[in-house]
Amino acid sequence: PDENAARLAAERQAMLIKPPGALGRLEALAIRLAAWQRTPKPTADRVRIVVFAGDHGVTEEGVSAFPQSVTAAMVNQFARGGAAISVLARTLGAELEVINLGTVEETGSVPGVLDLRLGLGTANFLRGPAMTERQLAEALRAGRDAAARASSAGIRIFIGGEMGIGNTTAAAALGAALLGETPEALAGPGAGLDTEGVRRKAEIIRRALDRHGSYLADPLEVLRRLGGFEIAALAGAFVTCAQRGLPVLVDGFICTAAALAAERLCPRVSGWFLYAHASAEPGHARMLAALDGKPLLDLGMRLGEGSGAAVALPLLRLVCTLHAGMATFEEAGIAGKSS
Amino acid sequence: PDENAARLAAERQAMLIKPPGALGRLEALAIRLAAWQRTPKPTADRVRIVVFAGDHGVTEEGVSAFPQSVTAAMVNQFARGGAAISVLARTLGAELEVINLGTVEETGSVPGVLDLRLGLGTANFLRGPAMTERQLAEALRAGRDAAARASSAGIRIFIGGEMGIGNTTAAAALGAALLGETPEALAGPGAGLDTEGVRRKAEIIRRALDRHGSYLADPLEVLRRLGGFEIAALAGAFVTCAQRGLPVLVDGFICTAAALAAERLCPRVSGWFLYAHASAEPGHARMLAALDGKPLLDLGMRLGEGSGAAVALPLLRLVCTLHAGMATFEEAGIAGKSS
Repeated sequence: PDENAARLAAERQAMLIKPPGALGRLEALAIRLAAWQRTPKPTADRVRIVVFAGDHGVTEEGVSAFPQSVTAAMVNQFARGGAAISVLARTLGAELEVINLGTVEETGSVPGVLDLRLGLGTANFLRGPAMTERQLAEALRAGRDAAARASSAGIRIFIGGEMGIGNTTAAAALGAALLGETPEALAGPGAGLDTEGVRRKAEIIRRALDRHGSYLADPLEVLRRLGGFEIAALAGAFVTCAQRGLPVLVDGFICTAAALAAERLCPRVSGWFLYAHASAEPGHARMLAALDGKPLLDLGMRLGEGSGAAVALPLLRLVCTLHAGMATFEEAGIAGKSS
Repeated sequence: PDENAARLAAERQAMLIKPPGALGRLEALAIRLAAWQRTPKPTADRVRIVVFAGDHGVTEEGVSAFPQSVTAAMVNQFARGGAAISVLARTLGAELEVINLGTVEETGSVPGVLDLRLGLGTANFLRGPAMTERQLAEALRAGRDAAARASSAGIRIFIGGEMGIGNTTAAAALGAALLGETPEALAGPGAGLDTEGVRRKAEIIRRALDRHGSYLADPLEVLRRLGGFEIAALAGAFVTCAQRGLPVLVDGFICTAAALAAERLCPRVSGWFLYAHASAEPGHARMLAALDGKPLLDLGMRLGEGSGAAVALPLLRLVCTLHAGMATFEEAGIAGKSS
């Protein structure tokens, strides 16, 4: 971040025709975006949403309310325009990139889906590592490449999204392992489990933590053993965004798990992350707290796909237009605060 | 509200390709907008922001951090495009109407400002009623007319805004009188008072409540004696919006005081109100609680002008585009939740 740009942006905020601080968090956001983008007048017009998809072997343990076939079907819908994230991207004028890293079912050759499948989903992490070393490396690489493409294309805000039936289980396992928390603290209903289902999900995570035991001291091994193709890709993308100076608007539970993994892999990359919303998934708050993240919105969303980040995007855009477009006290010929 | 449209919208929400409830509050908002607009597919494209301005006699007691001349200067800026609400309206493609109900200083003949001045600000409510009966009637009428114009023009969401140095004092007095709360519970820093200033503001409100005493049992007298031109106009506008079936996106502290007055004048009109944000002004939460209002955003804003409502508007628009634009499970050929 560029502290000089931040200082200039803060000076400008103080000159705009409003009581100091009256725009609340919007003011700090303007200053933070200025530092990130190395300009006193940041913008959030060019945004790319990259949705990574992959299936999860652990679904065979019955941890999801939906069948695994839904992952491929949703990938298809991302490209066809019927999914929430497609509607949001279209409405917001954001670019949408969809990357299939390994669905169990074929999606066919859908125009608009980049096919980088690394396998027919991950392996069941109760029986062994979710990914081979090579799969992990390729998933990370897929994410890093996507971030590099976005950066090279002049994108100003990066949004990661994900789709993968079973991925709240993987993300909760990742969170528990990285934070040293109990599975119960991280496991939630996901796409719609009942209380008994959540209990069972926590039990499966506990067994996985036991099975992988001492390997989990290494964050890369945590990602390989408990993560997923799409989660690893997100972590890779977030690291590269930070390294390239591209701010990330982090979505909900899964993306925050990836952000946490990224931070553990490369400390301080989270200085480039902004947290879009508080997920309804109960474990989200613990991961946010570990990242010192304060979400912008709290609307009870829990869809994934990057949808919460997309819904928060207009806020960032208004931050930028207010910051650049408001008159200063001097331009308006108005006296400032008296006394 | 149209319960049939709400039912159809709820049925549609259940068919969209997402886990039930995964869009959180956005789903309930789609259904509520459907009921209000009497259509299963509501829209939030045509929006009008009406900013009412007026000065307050009570400023002579030293209750504001800014001089009274700022009110007229800001009215000027609303029309010239340099104020926050002007930038927001332009960015959002919302119509902006500015109505001067009584600034102490001349604004000159500014194109784009409707001049309906009822006096050189209100009277100091420590010495007598803030408004004459005629002024109150005309202020209410100005608001009702603005709402009727918006409704007739086919506006789908109404946003009220306000400008008036000293109006957090009037709004806090109004809130204290209508809720039977102490002045200390409602008085806050407004545009920038320090602790001693807030204490003094509460003391002035206490003296006003004592002075107007038993008259304050009547909400219309509360509005006349303690309110302001712009606050009365907002109350009138909100009542007419409800009567005409035009949903109101209520801004922060001042607008919520007006919404509370509207509800006390015409019970059940608040069924047409949606609360945009939690103001940083500490008394806001009490007024929201009395209206059973749960704000959409919580960003520490305290600017007024309608700015918090404008910042929340993109959310309502995304609610509508998601609701109308997402594919259904049937259209996508996807199986729903298993078991």
